[in-house]
Amino acid sequence: MPELRKDPVVGRWVIISTERSRRPTHFHSTRPQRATGFCPFCPGAEDKTPPEVYAVRPGGPANSGNWLLRVVPNKFPALQIEGSLDRRGEGLYDRMNGVGAHEVVIESPLHDQDLADLPVEHLEQVLLAFRERILDLHRDKRIRYVLIFKNHGDTAGATLEHTHTQLVATPIIPKNIQEELEGARRYWELKERCVFCDIVQQETAEGNGRRLVALGEHFVSLMPFAPRFPFETWILPRRHDASFEVVTQAGGLRDLAAMLRDTLQRINQALDRPPFNFVLHTAPVTDSDLEYYHWHIEILPTLTRVAGFEIGSGFYINPTPPEDAAHYLRGMAGNGQP
Amino acid sequence: MPELRKDPVVGRWVIISTERSRRPTHFHSTRPQRATGFCPFCPGAEDKTPPEVYAVRPGGPANSGNWLLRVVPNKFPALQIEGSLDRRGEGLYDRMNGVGAHEVVIESPLHDQDLADLPVEHLEQVLLAFRERILDLHRDKRIRYVLIFKNHGDTAGATLEHTHTQLVATPIIPKNIQEELEGARRYWELKERCVFCDIVQQETAEGNGRRLVALGEHFVSLMPFAPRFPFETWILPRRHDASFEVVTQAGGLRDLAAMLRDTLQRINQALDRPPFNFVLHTAPVTDSDLEYYHWHIEILPTLTRVAGFEIGSGFYINPTPPEDAAHYLRGMAGNGQP
Repeated sequence: MPELRKDPVVGRWVIISTERSRRPTHFHSTRPQRATGFCPFCPGAEDKTPPEVYAVRPGGPANSGNWLLRVVPNKFPALQIEGSLDRRGEGLYDRMNGVGAHEVVIESPLHDQDLADLPVEHLEQVLLAFRERILDLHRDKRIRYVLIFKNHGDTAGATLEHTHTQLVATPIIPKNIQEELEGARRYWELKERCVFCDIVQQETAEGNGRRLVALGEHFVSLMPFAPRFPFETWILPRRHDASFEVVTQAGGLRDLAAMLRDTLQRINQALDRPPFNFVLHTAPVTDSDLEYYHWHIEILPTLTRVAGFEIGSGFYINPTPPEDAAHYLRGMAGNGQP
Repeated sequence: MPELRKDPVVGRWVIISTERSRRPTHFHSTRPQRATGFCPFCPGAEDKTPPEVYAVRPGGPANSGNWLLRVVPNKFPALQIEGSLDRRGEGLYDRMNGVGAHEVVIESPLHDQDLADLPVEHLEQVLLAFRERILDLHRDKRIRYVLIFKNHGDTAGATLEHTHTQLVATPIIPKNIQEELEGARRYWELKERCVFCDIVQQETAEGNGRRLVALGEHFVSLMPFAPRFPFETWILPRRHDASFEVVTQAGGLRDLAAMLRDTLQRINQALDRPPFNFVLHTAPVTDSDLEYYHWHIEILPTLTRVAGFEIGSGFYINPTPPEDAAHYLRGMAGNGQP
């Protein structure tokens, strides 16, 4: 069974996959390794994945070949859905059974489909799948957080070419989300305002807008003031909402799909279809109406090499000011919707 | 002038290099790019670097060709030594002039020298250079932290092949160090003991030792309980010391050099000379006698792809339990010293 372990100094929980333990020789051969001919995510290979937990298809039985989108458990899950949490100490250390879920959202039957090129209606279905899975996993009282992220392209960490997004449901809150929650709570205690609302307010104020990428009626795409990476871009709802899964904005997920598509297309144009990651930041499942937290999507193009060093120190040197990066992206044609 | 900017939510300071701003097209071409024939760090090219600030040579004038080790300012520094700190607000944001230092320690005149293969006496000189530079930069009251790190090998982020270590002196404390300081202080408040001392105690206790790599008289090399990466290894002094630059252990830097060499050689043997990073974690220059902090070196082999995702979420999945990794490294021959 995989294990969750907590660092006794900084309090970070890490998943240790005890079952697929890697021997040193494993790492000799896996430096650059690319996909072979067979793809388990393509239509016709439905029996090569565990049975689907969610799908969008015009008709026909579950796990048949005619589909627009499938969500399946990861065949090599980092966490397992069976078992009890079982927290244990070991001297000064803390550990927990690796209970949780690890799923894959296969966004399109087309092997080479780029997420940015999906029609808005299809992208809305993808976002809807995220929401449905979060709401479903919600019912499991052991789950405290559902993390949704995408590794697009080789250097961004994708191990399978076929476009997909991953979902990891955990009995802990990932460290960066915890830090955001704490930082946002401190700001609230000081000002009684949501820090993300203040950011949206300041960035969209008249005469400002140097870090704006696109401004829609309900969503805004912008570069943060202190980005870690060149062209790091955030998409936020303009009005306060703590949780992605209870989007209350008029227009809802359709508008979000349009804004996400617009932003990804600008990034693709400006940077020649770069590898990227995106991470959905939303409130923990038990805190979906927090006054001080504000859900958002972070898009991180993988343009510079991220060395263990940055991770070892938390220290980033970004060679592109966000004002310059936003200027470039504004000059690109989006999908014209926002 | 480069700029330091603070994220208003989590409080992370980032360096924005406004002067060497990268246009989008820059990133098209810089994916894999390797060194050409000329190396500015090789003997004979001393005039291609800024004048040295520290060197070890058997004789001869500064910046001449006969040397064992040189420390020079980075030709393209992320921070500049001239100027005042000048803190400014911009609405809810905070910024500061990019005042600081960015230096390069060229550890050997030999272009292909691997740090792990340097004789212990030479490696001691490298550690001594770290210490001397920290103590010198100490005198500048604007500097709050001196971060020393190494990117070894292509995928670990090294842009020049010739072995070197970087030093960045900043007017802020890097985020991960700050978190360690806070976590260690909380532990002290609870127990009135240093958490790192407790870790050393527990890991070296009789009948334990499953995460030990090597145990010397004054230093210990071990795998942390909750490592982010496969084969992540820490070297710590066995007795309490907050600051690397005031090493009080009998044996001092010579013993540390032996332990560092031993650990790197084991890693090289087990993992076929992998790319790696190391980061020196030491107390801030103004707090060199903290009761609750304990300096150490973190070695992070770059075996798995570190995606923006990990950085976006702070969430790590490590496929190799540290007990297994330590077992492999114990089976390798070190340099026989510790």
